[in-house]
Amino acid sequence: MKRAIVLLSGGLDSCVAAAMAREEGIELVAALNVFYGQRHAREMKSFVEVAKHFGMEPIHLDISPIAQTIGAATSLINTDEELAMDRPLSSMTAHVPRTYVPGRNTIFLSLAQSVAEARDLDNIVVGFNAVDFSGYPDCRPIFVDAWNHLARYATTRSYIKNQPIEVLAPIINMSKASVVYHGLRLKAPLEKTWSCYAGGEKACGRCDSCRIRWNGFAVNGQGRDPIHYEVVPDTVSL
Amino acid sequence: MKRAIVLLSGGLDSCVAAAMAREEGIELVAALNVFYGQRHAREMKSFVEVAKHFGMEPIHLDISPIAQTIGAATSLINTDEELAMDRPLSSMTAHVPRTYVPGRNTIFLSLAQSVAEARDLDNIVVGFNAVDFSGYPDCRPIFVDAWNHLARYATTRSYIKNQPIEVLAPIINMSKASVVYHGLRLKAPLEKTWSCYAGGEKACGRCDSCRIRWNGFAVNGQGRDPIHYEVVPDTVSL
Repeated sequence: MKRAIVLLSGGLDSCVAAAMAREEGIELVAALNVFYGQRHAREMKSFVEVAKHFGMEPIHLDISPIAQTIGAATSLINTDEELAMDRPLSSMTAHVPRTYVPGRNTIFLSLAQSVAEARDLDNIVVGFNAVDFSGYPDCRPIFVDAWNHLARYATTRSYIKNQPIEVLAPIINMSKASVVYHGLRLKAPLEKTWSCYAGGEKACGRCDSCRIRWNGFAVNGQGRDPIHYEVVPDTVSL
Repeated sequence: MKRAIVLLSGGLDSCVAAAMAREEGIELVAALNVFYGQRHAREMKSFVEVAKHFGMEPIHLDISPIAQTIGAATSLINTDEELAMDRPLSSMTAHVPRTYVPGRNTIFLSLAQSVAEARDLDNIVVGFNAVDFSGYPDCRPIFVDAWNHLARYATTRSYIKNQPIEVLAPIINMSKASVVYHGLRLKAPLEKTWSCYAGGEKACGRCDSCRIRWNGFAVNGQGRDPIHYEVVPDTVSL
């Protein structure tokens, strides 16, 4: 039986990725959450609750000193910059969003790889998704493929035992509606997850992330998103 | 003119790698040093002095919380474990040394890549060396090649402008004697560097790293290592 660490943000995608990996017979041993100076720590609460649901050991790493160095380049860290709100959803795919954090997923995978090697785990499960936020270069299948090529040469485990730590990205090519569908089918704890980029008590309903999530529930008649919103987003076909 | 960030440990190899990159016409803009819970911080002083010598902005990142998670797997972090001392140098290449830190160079490169992307730099210069410590899987040319393949897909810079941040490893296939030779030839500040694994005032002269360094100076009649040793290592042909 393969044993895995899950890159768990507290959001919807990584929660459903974990549920899908478990369905395939992978034992979910640990969950890694990385704090790199995001605007708020609300997703941390969701991370702990989702990890607990799956029986995973929660591991939280704080590398926020990097925020001083790379912060100006991303609106997720730089609080001088307004988050984009209420813009047409169709505009999202035209460019790399300002919420892109330089090289973030490479950092996440490198940290997960080290923890996995130290604990002799076989896989890293990720909720990367190339569809709804297609502007992120490090969420694409070609990035994951290149990573898995690197992994063959990166660790003692691969060098000595020919057992590289392979990344599994089960939802990478799914629409948000498909992610919600599989989450509901597998009874993943979607009500415990958090997607909003703003830091309020309720999800704002106005940032890109809230609206894509809301519509993932709405478009296929899968019912309402179980979390609470300040403003109910418009329902549009994605 | 290409502009680079250097992964600078404070040791001999990365100092010489920086000098060689500069000789090739690359502008050395910044130096990145990562503290991950090593036994001591002596190399930090060397890092600052060497960065200053080359006119690079010193950037120090503390990710030592990871030590709690991966520390037991490496003798460089785990202080319950004795460092190997006085063992035959010929035994070093038979296996991956206990000083191997799981996935360390992947983490270092991922952090350097993010800083490079945030500052629009073209290259990451590293002092990885596959020869003297040939047991480290992530010091091999095949690892660097696989990284540069990944880099083509990992950042916005590569995605939008087809300008991946390429790793340069100028000393990767050199013997320690060759590294010393080029360091002396280029007047790199070798007297400011630090290689010892132990944490004393002077280099211990007994750990693998001290003895390989010492012999790098000695074997080709290049004179004595300018730093001070507690115990003068045996001179052997490597």
